[in-house]
Amino acid sequence: MKWVEPISCQVDLQQGLMHNASGHYQKRLSDLAGLYADDAAFKAELSHGGDRVVYEVTEWRPPARSGDMIFGLTRMSPGKIGEEFYLTRGHIHAVADRPEIYYGQRGEGLMLLESPDGETRIVEINAQTVCYVPPYWIHRSVNTGSDEFVMLFSYPADAGQDYDIIAHSGGMRRRIMADGTGGWKQVDNAAWQARSAQTVAKLLDQQSAGVTL
Amino acid sequence: MKWVEPISCQVDLQQGLMHNASGHYQKRLSDLAGLYADDAAFKAELSHGGDRVVYEVTEWRPPARSGDMIFGLTRMSPGKIGEEFYLTRGHIHAVADRPEIYYGQRGEGLMLLESPDGETRIVEINAQTVCYVPPYWIHRSVNTGSDEFVMLFSYPADAGQDYDIIAHSGGMRRRIMADGTGGWKQVDNAAWQARSAQTVAKLLDQQSAGVTL
Repeated sequence: MKWVEPISCQVDLQQGLMHNASGHYQKRLSDLAGLYADDAAFKAELSHGGDRVVYEVTEWRPPARSGDMIFGLTRMSPGKIGEEFYLTRGHIHAVADRPEIYYGQRGEGLMLLESPDGETRIVEINAQTVCYVPPYWIHRSVNTGSDEFVMLFSYPADAGQDYDIIAHSGGMRRRIMADGTGGWKQVDNAAWQARSAQTVAKLLDQQSAGVTL
Repeated sequence: MKWVEPISCQVDLQQGLMHNASGHYQKRLSDLAGLYADDAAFKAELSHGGDRVVYEVTEWRPPARSGDMIFGLTRMSPGKIGEEFYLTRGHIHAVADRPEIYYGQRGEGLMLLESPDGETRIVEINAQTVCYVPPYWIHRSVNTGSDEFVMLFSYPADAGQDYDIIAHSGGMRRRIMADGTGGWKQVDNAAWQARSAQTVAKLLDQQSAGVTL
């Protein structure tokens, strides 16, 4: 390889897949054990509905990482566990000052964001909505619609994903539930625990210093 | 500012604009003087058709740059100067190891790519085509259709643009012309001059070292 070759990938909106991808993974319901409020409903769904694919990602990763970018497509099935909408596992970037850009393609959903010190933001996403997830924000996608929810994404190739930050605080602070009239509402997650002042201060310091790890 | 706030920007496919952008610029025909093969046709177009807007960009740039990303929308008008299709100025990233991702939204066009040592690649782009421009490639967009050509783009916020690399070599090596049957063809640019072996070697060394400036 002299130079990395340009490539093109065609997005199939109907299938919710990107052709010519270098990677493809699926998450099944069982992969999301422990993330939902209603554990009984989760077990019932798993036993009656089977261990279905709840979201999948087709992505392209560059062969070299320095300064480079990853992009791909996320397809989320519609559904609820009890009254809670299907969600992705969620993460903060392992290199926390890295952002992510999502672009809604089909269906309706939202990005649930949480700052290290527990502020919540919600960005609703429909077709042609760009959602910018700034550095340092924990983020999770939620399908609030009755159809599949499909988004394109891109982020720096050296960002990585840290899933533990959510697990360690008992989940994200808010949950996205059906509001009983066809829409969604946010409710507190009773199990949520604030991150330590030390953890927050470290990330704030990093941000103010403009540190790139 | 404690943390940078998440934002959403709605893409208007029909207008070819992104709402809630932080920046907006337009390029007029006169801004592209000297880029086309047929200078007489360029002058005639300018004098008869007026100094029209040939492409415009609505974009969002983050307040901090470290590790961050810029995104936006490019709308290119359809047209030709003589037999040469409307194009953008084209650039390599000032930090040359930075990539760029384009996503076709409307119309038809292509990305004309040139490696530092003069290899040409062409990626055709239609709606839902993702085009990955790897680090180190000079790139220019060309509208080969009869309608507007609209693409979303994203790239690292510290990438910058170097336009001189094209000017110094007498333009890009190939030109994209009408083929007389409604399609396009590539032809040599007689004015093109190869970059020095030193320039190419420096960029190759940088790539193999994985240098992030």
